[in-house]
Amino acid sequence: MQRYFINKESHIDLSTNTIIIRGDDAHHITNVMRMRVNDTVYCCYDGLTHIARIDNLNQREVTLTIIETIKENKELPCSVTIAQGLVRKEKMEEVIDHITEMGANHYIPVIMKRSNVKVSEDKIDKKTIRLNKIAKEAAEQAHRSSVLEVHEPISFKEFLTKSNEYDLCLVAHVDDTNPLYIGDAIKDEMNILVLVGPEGGIDQIEIDELKKHNFKQVTLGKRVLRTEVAPNYIMSVIDYIRGNNHEV
Amino acid sequence: MQRYFINKESHIDLSTNTIIIRGDDAHHITNVMRMRVNDTVYCCYDGLTHIARIDNLNQREVTLTIIETIKENKELPCSVTIAQGLVRKEKMEEVIDHITEMGANHYIPVIMKRSNVKVSEDKIDKKTIRLNKIAKEAAEQAHRSSVLEVHEPISFKEFLTKSNEYDLCLVAHVDDTNPLYIGDAIKDEMNILVLVGPEGGIDQIEIDELKKHNFKQVTLGKRVLRTEVAPNYIMSVIDYIRGNNHEV
Repeated sequence: MQRYFINKESHIDLSTNTIIIRGDDAHHITNVMRMRVNDTVYCCYDGLTHIARIDNLNQREVTLTIIETIKENKELPCSVTIAQGLVRKEKMEEVIDHITEMGANHYIPVIMKRSNVKVSEDKIDKKTIRLNKIAKEAAEQAHRSSVLEVHEPISFKEFLTKSNEYDLCLVAHVDDTNPLYIGDAIKDEMNILVLVGPEGGIDQIEIDELKKHNFKQVTLGKRVLRTEVAPNYIMSVIDYIRGNNHEV
Repeated sequence: MQRYFINKESHIDLSTNTIIIRGDDAHHITNVMRMRVNDTVYCCYDGLTHIARIDNLNQREVTLTIIETIKENKELPCSVTIAQGLVRKEKMEEVIDHITEMGANHYIPVIMKRSNVKVSEDKIDKKTIRLNKIAKEAAEQAHRSSVLEVHEPISFKEFLTKSNEYDLCLVAHVDDTNPLYIGDAIKDEMNILVLVGPEGGIDQIEIDELKKHNFKQVTLGKRVLRTEVAPNYIMSVIDYIRGNNHEV
């Protein structure tokens, strides 16, 4: 069954069991899927999945009635934020797509010393909207019941301040002297933040700052992973440890 | 230090401690890296890493003397083969690049019922050479001491016969009735084969055939991963379980 996330332009009222889908999704239901009155879809909102029947539709607005609400349990029991030193748009898109499928909750681009990409202030809004759209589509494809949120790029200083909101802060960075494997750093924390560097890696000054802000430096196994591959490794290992889908 | 894998066109003689690098790598050393006599590089061959000093060089041939041999321990303790239903060239390139970084040893494209890509016999050689080059570059980047081998596409029937060579055969395919999580299927096997379907998934007839050939059907967590993301998940989980780089 087709899956849609209820976003800001749409509307959900649980007291009357009514959903109104607007915007691109209304167009998708009407013109792409060519659905009709009485067809049913999954509508995901606030961690719940509602099976809803179409009562009325046109390409601007689809009205539905909730006929059943299910808890799908497709999500990790903890919230995972992947922060990444700012990289090129194509790499960001790839990472966001992959980590959304793998269950991440937030993506924060961080402007770091070795980021060789510039932020053009006038395009941030448009870019962030596009990246969130990619996340939405990946979440639908992966049958998730919530969507990853892509944040606007922030400075390294803002990022350090923001890190106080998490109960585990990790930074993936090769450490030959005293390596801590990521799999050993994750226990039962509920709000996990993991930072990976941009293509050029993380500057030692930044590592020192991160450590002052309670970041633990972790390795991702024995090989050197590029910045676009590292988030996949991180998410898979977190899902292995915390996904609760296997005997440990 | 720059890393090169000794391939067929090059030559290594351990009795005289001599290496001759030919072809693209000779060009790379001479023209791209602009190295000189007495510069040193890593030369990887047969699981060992030799630190070698340049004695003579031109863009066709670089002669080196081995000054030290090290065992780097960057490889998994088991051999992992990822087989994938034949997908488009760009997706294959992405998968090969990522799983090489993550430590896989072999990649086999399998012609399956729902593969929507055709194999053009006359181009197989050229394509396989290109894919192996991508693997070589990814292995160098990841500081591996051996390279993933990309095989030529084989039929599903040939694949079933080939599967006898492995001591664990897994197929990643959603199973709602009796799911076995991949993390629970891997113990201490030395030669692991994991098959993922093409974009359209695996046909039930194929699943039945695979099961007759001792394949275990496994899930990759609770979400639905696309064929180009699934291999990343598989490799990360195998590395977590078997990488021996953490307290279990």
